[in-house]
Amino acid sequence: MKSRPQVNGERLLKRLDDFAAIGATQAGGVDRQALSLEDRNARAVLADLAAKRGFSVFQDAMANLFIRREGRSPGGAPFLIGSHLDSQPTGGRYDGALGTLAALEVLETLEDAGAETDAPIELVAWTNEEGSRFAPGTMGSMAFSLGHIPQHWRETRGTDGLPLGDALAATLEALPTAERRALGFPILGYLELHIEQGPSLEKENIPIGIVTGVQGTRWLEVTVTGQAAHAGTTQLAFRRDPMVAVTSALHTLYKTIMPGDEAARLTVGRIAAYPGSINAIPGSVNLTIDLRHPSADHLNTFEAQVLAGFQAAAAGHGCSVDIRKTFDMSPASFSKTVIGGLEQAARHLGLPFKHMVSGAFHDALYVAKVAPAAMIFVPCRDGLSHNEAEYVEPEHSVAGAQMLLQSTLDVLAKVAENS
Amino acid sequence: MKSRPQVNGERLLKRLDDFAAIGATQAGGVDRQALSLEDRNARAVLADLAAKRGFSVFQDAMANLFIRREGRSPGGAPFLIGSHLDSQPTGGRYDGALGTLAALEVLETLEDAGAETDAPIELVAWTNEEGSRFAPGTMGSMAFSLGHIPQHWRETRGTDGLPLGDALAATLEALPTAERRALGFPILGYLELHIEQGPSLEKENIPIGIVTGVQGTRWLEVTVTGQAAHAGTTQLAFRRDPMVAVTSALHTLYKTIMPGDEAARLTVGRIAAYPGSINAIPGSVNLTIDLRHPSADHLNTFEAQVLAGFQAAAAGHGCSVDIRKTFDMSPASFSKTVIGGLEQAARHLGLPFKHMVSGAFHDALYVAKVAPAAMIFVPCRDGLSHNEAEYVEPEHSVAGAQMLLQSTLDVLAKVAENS
Repeated sequence: MKSRPQVNGERLLKRLDDFAAIGATQAGGVDRQALSLEDRNARAVLADLAAKRGFSVFQDAMANLFIRREGRSPGGAPFLIGSHLDSQPTGGRYDGALGTLAALEVLETLEDAGAETDAPIELVAWTNEEGSRFAPGTMGSMAFSLGHIPQHWRETRGTDGLPLGDALAATLEALPTAERRALGFPILGYLELHIEQGPSLEKENIPIGIVTGVQGTRWLEVTVTGQAAHAGTTQLAFRRDPMVAVTSALHTLYKTIMPGDEAARLTVGRIAAYPGSINAIPGSVNLTIDLRHPSADHLNTFEAQVLAGFQAAAAGHGCSVDIRKTFDMSPASFSKTVIGGLEQAARHLGLPFKHMVSGAFHDALYVAKVAPAAMIFVPCRDGLSHNEAEYVEPEHSVAGAQMLLQSTLDVLAKVAENS
Repeated sequence: MKSRPQVNGERLLKRLDDFAAIGATQAGGVDRQALSLEDRNARAVLADLAAKRGFSVFQDAMANLFIRREGRSPGGAPFLIGSHLDSQPTGGRYDGALGTLAALEVLETLEDAGAETDAPIELVAWTNEEGSRFAPGTMGSMAFSLGHIPQHWRETRGTDGLPLGDALAATLEALPTAERRALGFPILGYLELHIEQGPSLEKENIPIGIVTGVQGTRWLEVTVTGQAAHAGTTQLAFRRDPMVAVTSALHTLYKTIMPGDEAARLTVGRIAAYPGSINAIPGSVNLTIDLRHPSADHLNTFEAQVLAGFQAAAAGHGCSVDIRKTFDMSPASFSKTVIGGLEQAARHLGLPFKHMVSGAFHDALYVAKVAPAAMIFVPCRDGLSHNEAEYVEPEHSVAGAQMLLQSTLDVLAKVAENS
């Protein structure tokens, strides 16, 4: 294709506004949790827009939603672009929605230009990326990459008590115009535009991040047990205070793990002391540790440091420690071919870019297991996400969509060369 | 009085068993919260035992319960001995009950011996020492020392939603045989036997603690506010993680305040991170600090250290800090006259003793504001209290009661000398 069609920025921004109204919260955010009424409304609006442009609409057993613009040779494996429509309970307007609506904009721009592509291009809106109503997140892309819905998922209950199976069935029925399609089918590749959810692009004033991979993540749940006792009557020599042990261990870990390695992340997001009386030395302290790094070896080292650090601190204060690993996601690297296509597209468009490793999970992580995939990041204000105040400058949304369009074409060309 | 009457150990131990059955928990503890049905049952049983011995029974507007054995000159101001009958929700069998039932044993022993005393001696069971159903604790002795019930107390609701005024009225009505008496009246002095609720007597194998005062206590509520952000996407340079600030401040405080001063206590009994997601840097961390010391000056210094420590740590991590003082109880020293009487009694009985400062609040603290008072501690196993496993060796209970009897006589003699 010679022509370089331009996305319609105004249309994209209006679509972002329209979808932000579906599940809008008082504080300007969005509550559109997976498979909720709001999620179904958003799906219906999207399917309607697609039908008006003559695109076909499909959904699979996981309620992943596909919108297909046919290629030159009908019936072929599509190239997927998209993201998700579900949000956190107090989520933002861009997380997921930007990538999904930019994908629609790509299809519409191509349609407006009458541009033919060799391969069909399909928008995908993955089901339940957020995992806030039904855990875990990225269920839709995970099931797609597996080709089946894992056992027990259907019985998984949402925060409102409803089984996932029932919510899925209701969501599928709510869109009877969509043709049913088998779960997991051959695709040529996948591209996902998403907001960075961190501050680095904004701080460095770079409009485009080319995401080369996703950090590995480990979750540890630590319980340090001492002895509950009266705050006033118990002398230092007789105290077995787990808060002191936890403080000592964390102080050392905070001072070593992150300052020693720019790519390392250590976060304690939850902590509680039991029984939780102002005037009682706690009997135990429970906390979570989220460790991230692009290298599995480094994650192993960090995990060992956490273990040794807590064991030493617990022993030093007459306490014992129990550490359970509750989640372990290996680091992933995206396709070099797709990354090459993204670099080429950014250069085509004259958009400054930098390579990044994503610190968050994304559907692209699972799609990358079955097809060449990568991601595009755009800046968001103050790096804020999972927050009703989430905001993306209009020019960044539009540049992201333009980048998605251009790179879809450039990556498709590269994928074609390679096949 | 020349004779040295001996308490009836068997009777005391049986009474302890009988009262432990009132509100007994499955785990061998007691749930007899202030002004509950169980508390009323215990009061009724106590009043019955008193009536059988011909002692008179009184209660005041705060439902403090008094059992009077008349002295040589009827109608005089009494010497009070006692403690409380209410318990924590999962409390032990001895906390409060030992002091109350030992006081009954003193009255009965004197009665058995036909021993006359110059002054009347009264058992007192103070209302709501624990403060677990209705806050604050030591309400009964506090109101007694004030001579009135503070405003708003009657509207204070219990953990079950019932106003204190209603629970008080129901408790008073449940014991119609008790004569009503004005709140706060002249007393000659007060002695309270209590379990140590700490391990030091047991560890040093000393049966009697003579309590010379009560530590001062300050409660601070600390909130450190940073910025909630994604655990994976946010680099160290952009993190404003309040958990890191809290850890740093506490690490320094734990290393300085207690190791530098044997009488100092620093306890963090409650801590929580908000919003409390495994994969989110918390936006804020909230914790409580319980500071104790026998000297008000030292408490001022500690409070200043906490303030400075948190301010420095917060500033160092891009966070802000808010510290509120939620409770401030000055240290108290007990009467030298009463302490002298206690020393003399212990020597009379050949019981090893040591002087101690109480780390916990007790009713004696408030009674000491209006009359010469002090306390006797006996060891409890592993220093455990506010716990269903609370345990006191039978010989320690009996020695405590014997000490209460002897010191009541010796202190009364000293108080008479001084007056």
